[in-house]
Amino acid sequence: MTSLDDLPIRDDLRGRTPYGAPQKSVPVALNVNENTHPIPEDVAHDIVARVAAAILSLNRYPDREFTALRRALADYLGHDLDIDRIWAANGSNEVLQHILQAFGGPGRSVLGFAPTYSMYGLLASGTGTEWITAGRDDEFELSPETAVAAVREHDPDIVLLCAPNNPTGTPLSLETITAVADAARGIVVVDEAYIEFADPGTASALTLLEGRPRLLVSRTMSKAFAFAGARVGYLAADPAVIDALRLVRLPYHLSALTQAAALGALAHSDEMLAMVGEIRAQRERISTELARLGFHPYRSGSNFVLFGGVDDPHAVFQALLDRGILIREIGLPGCLRVTAGTEAETSAFLEAIAVFAPATAAS
Amino acid sequence: MTSLDDLPIRDDLRGRTPYGAPQKSVPVALNVNENTHPIPEDVAHDIVARVAAAILSLNRYPDREFTALRRALADYLGHDLDIDRIWAANGSNEVLQHILQAFGGPGRSVLGFAPTYSMYGLLASGTGTEWITAGRDDEFELSPETAVAAVREHDPDIVLLCAPNNPTGTPLSLETITAVADAARGIVVVDEAYIEFADPGTASALTLLEGRPRLLVSRTMSKAFAFAGARVGYLAADPAVIDALRLVRLPYHLSALTQAAALGALAHSDEMLAMVGEIRAQRERISTELARLGFHPYRSGSNFVLFGGVDDPHAVFQALLDRGILIREIGLPGCLRVTAGTEAETSAFLEAIAVFAPATAAS
Repeated sequence: MTSLDDLPIRDDLRGRTPYGAPQKSVPVALNVNENTHPIPEDVAHDIVARVAAAILSLNRYPDREFTALRRALADYLGHDLDIDRIWAANGSNEVLQHILQAFGGPGRSVLGFAPTYSMYGLLASGTGTEWITAGRDDEFELSPETAVAAVREHDPDIVLLCAPNNPTGTPLSLETITAVADAARGIVVVDEAYIEFADPGTASALTLLEGRPRLLVSRTMSKAFAFAGARVGYLAADPAVIDALRLVRLPYHLSALTQAAALGALAHSDEMLAMVGEIRAQRERISTELARLGFHPYRSGSNFVLFGGVDDPHAVFQALLDRGILIREIGLPGCLRVTAGTEAETSAFLEAIAVFAPATAAS
Repeated sequence: MTSLDDLPIRDDLRGRTPYGAPQKSVPVALNVNENTHPIPEDVAHDIVARVAAAILSLNRYPDREFTALRRALADYLGHDLDIDRIWAANGSNEVLQHILQAFGGPGRSVLGFAPTYSMYGLLASGTGTEWITAGRDDEFELSPETAVAAVREHDPDIVLLCAPNNPTGTPLSLETITAVADAARGIVVVDEAYIEFADPGTASALTLLEGRPRLLVSRTMSKAFAFAGARVGYLAADPAVIDALRLVRLPYHLSALTQAAALGALAHSDEMLAMVGEIRAQRERISTELARLGFHPYRSGSNFVLFGGVDDPHAVFQALLDRGILIREIGLPGCLRVTAGTEAETSAFLEAIAVFAPATAAS
């Protein structure tokens, strides 16, 4: 039998294993920061109607410029963004891949602040871009001084700022983003995948775009929009950046089904986002309860909570899984990560984790 | 205003323009080798029902391993292919991109036989792989001797064989494929995007897979399956090759909508492919008529015909477009390419082109 080692794969891929959060069918899945609320029924009906219409001309290639979708995304984002400042792809991973293909590549580097989204390193590798990580401050925060010092030290071609940060949940201030944008000579990407879950009043990096042609703000419909299965990520940036991404995207990369479904969801954005407040409330409940139990929850502006103070993370992960509750081991010592689900899912998690509470153990 | 030149894009992208067959709304669009027959109504209904079901859990990430889809593709392909030999992505372009990411890249090369599918060069560039072209024999044919001589001369890491070839339509013999597979030390990809339109009795390169772990056969649902808008390409190869592609694909690259829609189409493959015979008949009609008119149609095993003997291709292209008929200029001197559409579309094309017939001009 032929094995991977018998094949002429790229040298830097040898010995690698594929990305893989476990996909298990469990009653309470709180491991990949999905929105656990299904799409509301009336919205689902509208999406089905739009997709059905698209199927009638599925024999034709889709609109390569996805013009209607870019218009709807611009309207949703607001900030007077025009359609020529909008890009989209199959998930924000593909958006980031386009950015690295256009502005990274062999001989170039991309800087991130660890621990951060694990796909960044894989995307860098996939595009031949050097992946550099710098550290964070206490509690996984990132001050302007710490961020700028790393930019000065490494002089990267691209900086990836995850705001709020995954897997820590840490919000990122506009002061840090502005300081990085001022200090960096290259492209600065603010990945706002979870921004809709930020505390009310939090400003988006979209407010910083004007006059900063090298600043890019990426978003996703996977989280707040409950659209992980549809794979829609998007981006706002200078029109020249969008032109650069057109040079590297595969033609017709967004299917007619994707475009139709996303248009349906965006037409109901108020209703789709109505669940965000409830999810934020469950996140706060998780943080409060975990602290009360003696764990150490980190500050979160997202739909998940990272918490420390776990003696044996793998044992706790497994014990919860045995009870049908799937959370995430992310490789940080003493830490686990849990997604804020529905009230019932949150209750199930909190009840199960209570057994392992440091406060209990110490008493 | 910021221009592309003001941005730090990769040096090799400077001065490039994006891929772009014109997307015009015309009564008779025969320019991008789509299947001009819409999906049959009963099949469309089944696809809608499956997509509607998928929308109910669209808040969750899709099956990263698209297991049900791989099973259906294996069943469709036959040849005793097991599911662990199947891969799929958003269009065969993305399948080819995965191959180049896994087996190509900086310092490696990919060989094709020009004129061939224009995306090959772009995909090579997008992955930093050197793109080498070798020539063909008379009439755009490719003999074992010519192909093997080029493989020996250039010693490429990957060979891309387009069978039948786009934009020429030329069928490729199993003898040439076998000879290349024997001569090449690296990966050999047979792109069978149009194979369903080959003359009855034509054998697929799938028959050559057994015992050849470096031979890959890619397909698409865009053409025979009338599914261009859904973006589904796929591949059959050794299980180790599939493992290699897992290392470079973006996680969850195939949306739940794509997987559901493709399963619907494959469940009706007999009906979906019923139009293939009719399209092949129109292709034969085009070839016969163009020859009668004094043009030089090249041998085609696909759903399109390349023809020479055109004095001023751009003038003819424009004259047809003025009559609402869009065909393709592909940059070969004296040549144009036309897709075989419905009987009515073919009639419209033949009537319009007759005015420019060399035979008429000479009389």
